[in-house]
Amino acid sequence: MPKKQTSWVTAADVARRAGVSRSAVSRAFSPTASIAPETRERVMEAARSLGYQVNLIAREMIMQRSSMVGVVTAGFENPFRAKLLSQIIAALGRHKLTPIVVNAEDPVQIQQSLDMLLSYRIGGIIMTSASPPLGLARQYLEGEIPVVMINRASNLPGADVAVSDNAAGATLAARLLIDAGATRLAFVGPTKPSYNGKARCAGFLRAIQHIVKEGATLTHPVETHSTPGDTYECGVAAAHALLATHDRQAPRPDGVFCSSDLLALGFIDTARQHFGMRVPEDLRVVGFDDIPAANYDNYQLTTIVQDTHALADTAIELLIDRMNAFSGVSRTRIVPVTSVVRKTCA
Amino acid sequence: MPKKQTSWVTAADVARRAGVSRSAVSRAFSPTASIAPETRERVMEAARSLGYQVNLIAREMIMQRSSMVGVVTAGFENPFRAKLLSQIIAALGRHKLTPIVVNAEDPVQIQQSLDMLLSYRIGGIIMTSASPPLGLARQYLEGEIPVVMINRASNLPGADVAVSDNAAGATLAARLLIDAGATRLAFVGPTKPSYNGKARCAGFLRAIQHIVKEGATLTHPVETHSTPGDTYECGVAAAHALLATHDRQAPRPDGVFCSSDLLALGFIDTARQHFGMRVPEDLRVVGFDDIPAANYDNYQLTTIVQDTHALADTAIELLIDRMNAFSGVSRTRIVPVTSVVRKTCA
Repeated sequence: MPKKQTSWVTAADVARRAGVSRSAVSRAFSPTASIAPETRERVMEAARSLGYQVNLIAREMIMQRSSMVGVVTAGFENPFRAKLLSQIIAALGRHKLTPIVVNAEDPVQIQQSLDMLLSYRIGGIIMTSASPPLGLARQYLEGEIPVVMINRASNLPGADVAVSDNAAGATLAARLLIDAGATRLAFVGPTKPSYNGKARCAGFLRAIQHIVKEGATLTHPVETHSTPGDTYECGVAAAHALLATHDRQAPRPDGVFCSSDLLALGFIDTARQHFGMRVPEDLRVVGFDDIPAANYDNYQLTTIVQDTHALADTAIELLIDRMNAFSGVSRTRIVPVTSVVRKTCA
Repeated sequence: MPKKQTSWVTAADVARRAGVSRSAVSRAFSPTASIAPETRERVMEAARSLGYQVNLIAREMIMQRSSMVGVVTAGFENPFRAKLLSQIIAALGRHKLTPIVVNAEDPVQIQQSLDMLLSYRIGGIIMTSASPPLGLARQYLEGEIPVVMINRASNLPGADVAVSDNAAGATLAARLLIDAGATRLAFVGPTKPSYNGKARCAGFLRAIQHIVKEGATLTHPVETHSTPGDTYECGVAAAHALLATHDRQAPRPDGVFCSSDLLALGFIDTARQHFGMRVPEDLRVVGFDDIPAANYDNYQLTTIVQDTHALADTAIELLIDRMNAFSGVSRTRIVPVTSVVRKTCA
């Protein structure tokens, strides 16, 4: 890239126009500095008339810290992650932090991007995806760059975590299915590759044990179907596997908890179109996330709502705390979930 | 935010370790500088062993240009825009440019973010959304910061445009509907607020005129239904408006071109569930975008495919050209589209 010929308005220009010293201009733009209100106003007036923009990069170099935050995510095409990314960007903006977005889906690109983030001496990292290996997070922590994870576990000392209440969500799902009359339950989700899948499965099984102890009757043991991911296509495959192999002794499940909405959509389409099942009459379904398609007329999916706004806010609070004081034990903040009852389980 | 205590490895540290001058380190990291290959290798070896990262910010301050690019977008929850954003980030990475993502949905935040981008003296701006007023683009152009628009028109001198071939897409849609036997056609889309909606509508009407001249027979004139946006909900509302008001004299349309897939999904669900119509037997539907849900079993939507990869690449080529030489007339590059035939119009 070439040299730019643009001539920028400098702090010295503003000082000249305002008739003050260069350091007064600097203090006027620093919220905590001591400066007479009239002087600040005079500087601001001069800055406005000249179109002056504080040179953030220069300021950050001098201050030895950056307001840039790396947001490492994957799978923007997953509507839940897209919504979460949008909330993270908004929340960073409210704290005057600048998001540099890294797509973690391409392993070559992610290493390159993370090297680049180190080069910019960024203020912190938010990781939302299961993809980037924890080794990368470790590199940042070694450089005393704060790392916050959203919806993933971490055993990394120094990394903080903001996570939706998977156990509470799974309990809500179990209650909804049993209250709606399901007696042959199944769980569908990525129990192996995914922290969330595992946590939701465990929470579901625990909640059912508890509800059965309270007196509910299940005619068959709960089936667990592990998927390789949480996509629509995985939901289609899971439905073929779970619904095709049943007979009179082991009838089809009549209540399924899918650990993502996308899985639930694929499961529902296949149950209806391939197996002729009616939802919810023959099959009750509860999802997790509350993506826009959950509310489409064709689905009207009952689901567990993740509070993306609160997840983003919590992550950024943790990050800012850690930017202010890097040392201290890792913290995990659990963000509450709710349920929305639509037609697939009512 | 606080001062960071991290002690960074500096170029001087690398020079000491490699036994070379500070300027040799600088030249080793500059691809165009003249330096003996052995010296460069020695520097690289020392840099690797010390974990040295080039300080990009410092380098950019010295070079008076930035590798940061602002990506102004809106509506990540629209799956097409999420996919495009993902491709833009990947394409920037391939050119060692760093994306700073700005969500244009919140007018307060967008002004603040754009001020921030100016403060970082960014290398360029990519605008993908219809939301940000062109006045903001003008601010950048006045500061000689390159601006490239994706899928939106621009009369701004100096701003370049990469746009999907709306006319060709609309022509493909018209042919698909007429070839599938539709004789009462309708267009559904945001003809007023959206550049794309307008272009796709005009292209559709022109193509139909042309096909009719060639000998095709339409029993009724084409209806145009203008929507306030391109969401699923707008598609639902459009179906209620278009399908409820027809009688024997003016029967319901039997072929609809929706200017986005989301519109098409809402239209299909409503036609089926509220009006009992069969798709494609009673109603053929063609969308635009090819979002993941277009391939769901419940929809199997025939649609016009936008090449997000090529849109992103083209935009970034335009941007880099303009970063190399700011002056010159605005250019518009048209990116080809294709069609994918599924069940809603076959």
